[in-house]
Amino acid sequence: MKDFFLLRDDITFLNFGSFGATPKVVFDDYVKWQLLLENEPVQFITVDGYRYINEARIAFADFISCHHENLIFVPNPTHAINIIAKNLKLNKGEEILSTSLEYGAMDRTWNYYCEKQGATYIQQKISLPIQSKESFLNEFWQGYSEKTKVVFISQITSSTGLILPVKEICEEAKKRGLTTIVDGAHVPAHIDLNLSELKADFYTGACHKWMMTPKGSSFLYVHPDYQKALDPLIVSWGYKSAAPSNSQFFDYHQFNGTRDFSAYLTIPKAIEFMEKHNWKEKTEECRNQLIENAPKLFNLLNTQALAPLTKEFFGQLCSAEIKTNEPEKLQRLLFEKYKIEIPVMRHGDKCYIRFSFQVFNTVSELDYLIDSLSDIIQSTDLIKLH
Amino acid sequence: MKDFFLLRDDITFLNFGSFGATPKVVFDDYVKWQLLLENEPVQFITVDGYRYINEARIAFADFISCHHENLIFVPNPTHAINIIAKNLKLNKGEEILSTSLEYGAMDRTWNYYCEKQGATYIQQKISLPIQSKESFLNEFWQGYSEKTKVVFISQITSSTGLILPVKEICEEAKKRGLTTIVDGAHVPAHIDLNLSELKADFYTGACHKWMMTPKGSSFLYVHPDYQKALDPLIVSWGYKSAAPSNSQFFDYHQFNGTRDFSAYLTIPKAIEFMEKHNWKEKTEECRNQLIENAPKLFNLLNTQALAPLTKEFFGQLCSAEIKTNEPEKLQRLLFEKYKIEIPVMRHGDKCYIRFSFQVFNTVSELDYLIDSLSDIIQSTDLIKLH
Repeated sequence: MKDFFLLRDDITFLNFGSFGATPKVVFDDYVKWQLLLENEPVQFITVDGYRYINEARIAFADFISCHHENLIFVPNPTHAINIIAKNLKLNKGEEILSTSLEYGAMDRTWNYYCEKQGATYIQQKISLPIQSKESFLNEFWQGYSEKTKVVFISQITSSTGLILPVKEICEEAKKRGLTTIVDGAHVPAHIDLNLSELKADFYTGACHKWMMTPKGSSFLYVHPDYQKALDPLIVSWGYKSAAPSNSQFFDYHQFNGTRDFSAYLTIPKAIEFMEKHNWKEKTEECRNQLIENAPKLFNLLNTQALAPLTKEFFGQLCSAEIKTNEPEKLQRLLFEKYKIEIPVMRHGDKCYIRFSFQVFNTVSELDYLIDSLSDIIQSTDLIKLH
Repeated sequence: MKDFFLLRDDITFLNFGSFGATPKVVFDDYVKWQLLLENEPVQFITVDGYRYINEARIAFADFISCHHENLIFVPNPTHAINIIAKNLKLNKGEEILSTSLEYGAMDRTWNYYCEKQGATYIQQKISLPIQSKESFLNEFWQGYSEKTKVVFISQITSSTGLILPVKEICEEAKKRGLTTIVDGAHVPAHIDLNLSELKADFYTGACHKWMMTPKGSSFLYVHPDYQKALDPLIVSWGYKSAAPSNSQFFDYHQFNGTRDFSAYLTIPKAIEFMEKHNWKEKTEECRNQLIENAPKLFNLLNTQALAPLTKEFFGQLCSAEIKTNEPEKLQRLLFEKYKIEIPVMRHGDKCYIRFSFQVFNTVSELDYLIDSLSDIIQSTDLIKLH
């Protein structure tokens, strides 16, 4: 399957999770849109673009089971979370409950906006390895207090690559009267996403990771109850529009000045690509392989899975704690000497190495990773085992 | 020259001003960067991208005569003005002095942020036609009061297509102790821009208009005195970065989550294209043709130039007041029946038709516009002459 992509042949690409990769047919579709734009920029941007965007919205809304008018496209989840965070009206002392496993850019965003309002971003400590869904939920809600107004949580964590039980979190949060915000950056086309069942108030995800569209294509879903309360993050013509559409949400947030929005328009082609190539079956096989082979990595690093090694917690990402003082140097060595693209990330006071298992990856690539790490353990002092 | 672009053959394209158009060689460069990104997304985005961005900054800084560390790339001037407006700390009652000729998205932005702070956005009425530079400056400064703290002004106006004397405005503003913000959306590669002489505190411009790079490539220049005071518009990893560069300005504003930043990287190629094709000489000829031929349009519409018809006020844009109650319908008719792409825009209580004269445009195209408008005058009641 790697021939379907534009990736370098000489690299063992075990980091699909960071930025995905775009299949050739989707890339061709990207260039097709960009050429169409250049063919008549004014018609494309000011006339036809609205129809194109709506067609992509409809196709994508069907893919994640929501109404297309409840979603807009944004460049990335960071942009989406900034829209939300800017607009959350918190009083002094109120709290946002989150976890210790969130993505650093989001932690920065919440801390920034909470500081402005005198609110507090609570990163409830999650003990690793997670023992069970119940133990996770129990630990998470220990962070709740009567000052909690909002829950923010990743559906799949970044550095630690774990699927969290956000459906249960959202259900309980609703019982407690809280606003729910889910960061699904790693979710679309990675695990099933059904927003009509999940019932988060806000949900964002990247299409340019596991869904494989070009970089800068993501979405923000907002429940209708919250749409009118959102000021634009970037004020433009759509704010107090002279020619408003039927949706203030769309007018305020979809267009913020001139840009090439072709990446959004490739979403239907990416869905078509996945259907044509039986992506659901193929990725199911990836999950099986991951669960079967991950223990080799844990054994080598003298560690264990960060949660029970089942499909409840694992999709196509798997992180292992790795004891190193120089994660950047280790990552660089893996890339330069062994031609392996894999992230080694600090998170809190630990470091993690995370492999992605996409349909073009093979067990022999994982074995090569293990061999390379063994070699590094034997030949350097970059990795400690105790 | 039109063959150098990707524009439709069957359209008389008199609206270069809105979104420019990209030469084939620059478009090819765009796709080259996008392919390079897809070849190894992680290396491109997290390693090499910094070097690529800096190379583009250095080339562009040379083009507009500033230090490259004082500029960042942004998708569009709207984004840039939002960064500034969000961060201007105005007290209740303080004023931003601007003109009645500004771009609607910017008016909305200033009104939005002023309202939040209890400040006032003063759109000083500029009488049209402008009689002289002196009369303009005199009228502009009538909007000044002791509450004025900031000046915001376009170097080339949008609907009315006029070059304004911003150098003189900035000089006088400095004498009065005001912060100066210049919207040069239409400026780069349209008229000469030398930021070391202009001495604005903030300057933004689009590269995707007259400089012809792909859509979504613009810049924000900030004088070093102001850089540290700017919070990010979109908080991400660069805010309180774990690995800061030598510039907080760069860290806070250049990267805001994953996106395809290839459009920025084509700037050196666009500069090379202009040099290779003697763009300065060719566009000088455009300005001559515009000044020689614009009176035909004014005569037909029974109006006059919006300022003295000289290169002091006119570049490659020329607007004429057009009396119509249905500007959108008129614009649509010109496109659909006559295959002319030209904007007909409301601004305040007037409407303007604006033609662009780019190097591939010809006098016979302007004559065709005149003939088409004559035909519309005779066959419909869309245009009034008195």
